[in-house]
Amino acid sequence: MDQLSLSNPVFTAYAIAAALMILKGVAMSWLTVFRMVSENGGFRNPEDLKQTMANPRPHANQLAPNERVERIRRIQLNDLENLPYFLIAGLLYVTTEPSLLLAQILFYGYVATRFMHFAAYYTAQIHDIRAALWTPGSLIIVFMAVSTILRAVG
Amino acid sequence: MDQLSLSNPVFTAYAIAAALMILKGVAMSWLTVFRMVSENGGFRNPEDLKQTMANPRPHANQLAPNERVERIRRIQLNDLENLPYFLIAGLLYVTTEPSLLLAQILFYGYVATRFMHFAAYYTAQIHDIRAALWTPGSLIIVFMAVSTILRAVG
Amino acid sequence: MDQLSLSNPVFTAYAIAAALMILKGVAMSWLTVFRMVSENGGFRNPEDLKQTMANPRPHANQLAPNERVERIRRIQLNDLENLPYFLIAGLLYVTTEPSLLLAQILFYGYVATRFMHFAAYYTAQIHDIRAALWTPGSLIIVFMAVSTILRAVG
Repeated sequence: MDQLSLSNPVFTAYAIAAALMILKGVAMSWLTVFRMVSENGGFRNPEDLKQTMANPRPHANQLAPNERVERIRRIQLNDLENLPYFLIAGLLYVTTEPSLLLAQILFYGYVATRFMHFAAYYTAQIHDIRAALWTPGSLIIVFMAVSTILRAVG
Repeated sequence: MDQLSLSNPVFTAYAIAAALMILKGVAMSWLTVFRMVSENGGFRNPEDLKQTMANPRPHANQLAPNERVERIRRIQLNDLENLPYFLIAGLLYVTTEPSLLLAQILFYGYVATRFMHFAAYYTAQIHDIRAALWTPGSLIIVFMAVSTILRAVG
Repeated sequence: MDQLSLSNPVFTAYAIAAALMILKGVAMSWLTVFRMVSENGGFRNPEDLKQTMANPRPHANQLAPNERVERIRRIQLNDLENLPYFLIAGLLYVTTEPSLLLAQILFYGYVATRFMHFAAYYTAQIHDIRAALWTPGSLIIVFMAVSTILRAVG
């Protein structure tokens, strides 16, 4: 049977989790845009101070860091530091032929903790909560990568 | 038939688009290097002020942000916020067995708009043009991710 | 034979290299955390100044950039600019059915130079050494991407 196809329930679980994480990651770009529009600032490019339809009354302050925009950028950076590794580690893990239940727990557990991590970061919860919600996802990636190596060399 | 092989025309289209985007992404690192050399500045590490063959006459200003270098870094960051998600979403989309024509439109359309986005960003076009060239690619990723979920749960 | 499965020795080499690089990438997040704890600073979020179990005596300086933390963040950013492209380029390259020996040289060569690049960056070696250790990996990605395109259109 073809492991990397939707006829494999483990791959199907991976595909759903991966697609959800991709949508989450892409949503951060859109959220940054929405924040910049609502704040009318937090821009980064000199040319963004030109008068356009989207920016009818430009002023120099629009290039100053805006904390409400910067928060979304930090969340987005946290995604970049985590999601690409999950996306590939998950794909590799599928090829180790894990049990469906364990795979579903790892894939959907990752998705669940990342969405909770987003909620905590977005609402500026204390670091300890953010860390508690980041750690399981990071350990899931480590577990899948180590499992892949053990299976590959085994 | 094996979906994820070059015997599948849909995968072949994905592989070409993905490889082009990888080359584009990697090229940003080289472009950053070329810009730092031509500007003789825009460095980021304290040790880059040591006298070496590549930097025979170091001076403290070389660590100051250099707008011509920073522009390439912003373009590179924009790639990091988009390309990894495209690369995996495209792979997942191949497994949904889309029509070849639609897949080619999505994959090559993504590539085309990303190259145009680069040209607009590199030449400092106004935000509205940049946004118009970024949006289709982002929507293509969303479309491929949603299609994958619908097919996976369907 | 299924190319993207652990029954294919080329894929197995890729899986080992990719998993090692994922572990390396994820380790940068943990290293950042350890550095922030040991420096008791280098934080980025306003809420990180709240008094918690992990931060019993907060002070405003904790949000100032800390060079020992920033170094790890730069190493991590360098990973983000490189590893995702390697991870996908390597997967595509497997589908071109390369010789096992060449594939192993490229995959494990990439891993080796990235670990050496980390050692050089971590210990603040001069730019010329860092560049000499970054360049082979970047060229390996380019080679794999170009090989994929040539095979796909050939």
